[in-house]
Amino acid sequence: MNRPMSELPEPVLVVGTGLLGTSLGMALRRRHVDVRLSDRNSEHLRTATGLGAGHPHRGEPVGIVVVAVPPDHIATEIARALTDTDAVVTDVGSVKTAPLHLLEGLDGNDRYAGGHPMAGSERSGPLAATATLFDGRPWAVTPHAGSGRVVTRAVEALATTAGASVVRLTPEEHDEAVARISHLPHLLSVLVAGRLADAPADHLALSGQGVRDVTRVAGGDPALWQQIVTANAAAVAGLLTQVRDQLDVLIDAVSTGDRGSLAEILERGVAGTRAIPGKHGGPSRPTASVFVSLPDHPGELARLFADAGASGVNIEDVHIDHDPARETGLVELVVDEIRADHLQGSLESRSWVTHR
Amino acid sequence: MNRPMSELPEPVLVVGTGLLGTSLGMALRRRHVDVRLSDRNSEHLRTATGLGAGHPHRGEPVGIVVVAVPPDHIATEIARALTDTDAVVTDVGSVKTAPLHLLEGLDGNDRYAGGHPMAGSERSGPLAATATLFDGRPWAVTPHAGSGRVVTRAVEALATTAGASVVRLTPEEHDEAVARISHLPHLLSVLVAGRLADAPADHLALSGQGVRDVTRVAGGDPALWQQIVTANAAAVAGLLTQVRDQLDVLIDAVSTGDRGSLAEILERGVAGTRAIPGKHGGPSRPTASVFVSLPDHPGELARLFADAGASGVNIEDVHIDHDPARETGLVELVVDEIRADHLQGSLESRSWVTHR
Repeated sequence: MNRPMSELPEPVLVVGTGLLGTSLGMALRRRHVDVRLSDRNSEHLRTATGLGAGHPHRGEPVGIVVVAVPPDHIATEIARALTDTDAVVTDVGSVKTAPLHLLEGLDGNDRYAGGHPMAGSERSGPLAATATLFDGRPWAVTPHAGSGRVVTRAVEALATTAGASVVRLTPEEHDEAVARISHLPHLLSVLVAGRLADAPADHLALSGQGVRDVTRVAGGDPALWQQIVTANAAAVAGLLTQVRDQLDVLIDAVSTGDRGSLAEILERGVAGTRAIPGKHGGPSRPTASVFVSLPDHPGELARLFADAGASGVNIEDVHIDHDPARETGLVELVVDEIRADHLQGSLESRSWVTHR
Repeated sequence: MNRPMSELPEPVLVVGTGLLGTSLGMALRRRHVDVRLSDRNSEHLRTATGLGAGHPHRGEPVGIVVVAVPPDHIATEIARALTDTDAVVTDVGSVKTAPLHLLEGLDGNDRYAGGHPMAGSERSGPLAATATLFDGRPWAVTPHAGSGRVVTRAVEALATTAGASVVRLTPEEHDEAVARISHLPHLLSVLVAGRLADAPADHLALSGQGVRDVTRVAGGDPALWQQIVTANAAAVAGLLTQVRDQLDVLIDAVSTGDRGSLAEILERGVAGTRAIPGKHGGPSRPTASVFVSLPDHPGELARLFADAGASGVNIEDVHIDHDPARETGLVELVVDEIRADHLQGSLESRSWVTHR
């Protein structure tokens, strides 16, 4: 790839060579950016260097410092970077208002603007890093009221050079947004999953794809989610309280058989699913599902996708049904509604058993 | 297929030729069962007959009556079948205790045992029917205290002949089970989605796969879900109340920063996700994800699955990330944990860009 015209000041110093820091170094190196690395953990630093994420920092002046340390240490490291250098300072933490309180009144805080790449992995540490981690992902850039304009542009240049696309928000907006689109769904998923924990096995035998989808994220690491939720407590508690109020209305509607009120709640849910932006940020297009039966071994899935590809229909999403009883799978191919008939006909003509 | 040894009494009369009734007729006809059909809607009846689901019923004696009409009419049709015939009677409704109350004390109710195939479609009517709808799906068979043993065996034979696998539950157990694994997840998904309905677009731009999974089912038809939830009001309200109690504990834990209590709730969620039976009813095996970048057009997905198939690793599940910014897709391949390294290596050797 060619080196882009960029307002990114160099060298870039990445503080913390875990999954995010090392991935960032690797992503920037693809664009031939000069990257320096530091970490208290010399083992991590050596691994990150070995992976080509950059060179160890020897105290030389840098253009921008990216703080990529665990949540509990972020504010301290931002403050240290502002004091020790004249560089632009940013971070990649998942909550943005909490560190700001600790930076208030600190000399040079106009050189800080926060950031949060919406990318991660269930694994951690430099060995889990990858240069493509940020490709096409949103990267929230969250200047505070005192952030300099050049500083914000430098952080935006960092995000785009790493392959991400910038979404600019205030720190308060950001924390409210992630509470709504990440922390709240996670916690409600946890509550649904919690109701399954002691259910009899023959009740759970009736489980379909719906409950699996709703509860998938509830399997995430409790230690990590504890930190995230605690750091964004105010926004999360506010939304949870809104949900409790809605839940009270719902319980009342179900108990009294008030279908009008129930309908209102259900319709609001439908509206919510339509509000999520579609693929590539465009408006959501209506989709339809074509279901295909297939024997449960690797070659069949490859054959199905080859045949689906031959139909010329773009597959938007795929679900493989976890069939509780048989050695056959059921694959759901989600496609643009107006293409579903064509795909189904094309697959049927190749002897697949399908239904809508 | 050969005709199975079966305790299924014939002919089978299917009352109601919508999606479920017509699919059932088609599924039974694959096994050469004698199927008769009736419907007040002569258009539906003609379509179902044309699709090969059976022959119109002319009042001749039948062995078993399957009531497959909308929820509001189920009890009436069961009672009519018990009165008008000497046959075994069952139904395919999604709630089992409510119709029972109406059958109490009715002469011949020992000839009734309920049923509920865990299969469906977002579409309705006979044109959406398919002979494979029940293949490998659980079919709850729910005899009441007075159901004759031969009657229950006949209903079980109906389910297995249609291709489903029987899960026997009492009507009360069934309604509790579907409240837990279907109705509760649906309603909580609706509440999460409801919080998105009026969120600013730039907040929603940060949406990832998690919120999409949690809210997918919330897009379901409000008119249908209104009926389902109302018919199972007691069980649903009971579970919603349990969730509200947990939600109060959660709000308190978040607001006061009580990490111990938060951890307990999060771990219970993890335990719940593990309680859902794995593919083919076996215990859930630990899985790992391999992420693959690919250009967003049909041929690439086919090529990926061909290459994944060539690796010999069985793909357990697939997610295609809806990338908000770029014309590239990110495909998540979920595989047995111990096979993930092999798959990743195999794909890398075929020039795919992957990460874990």
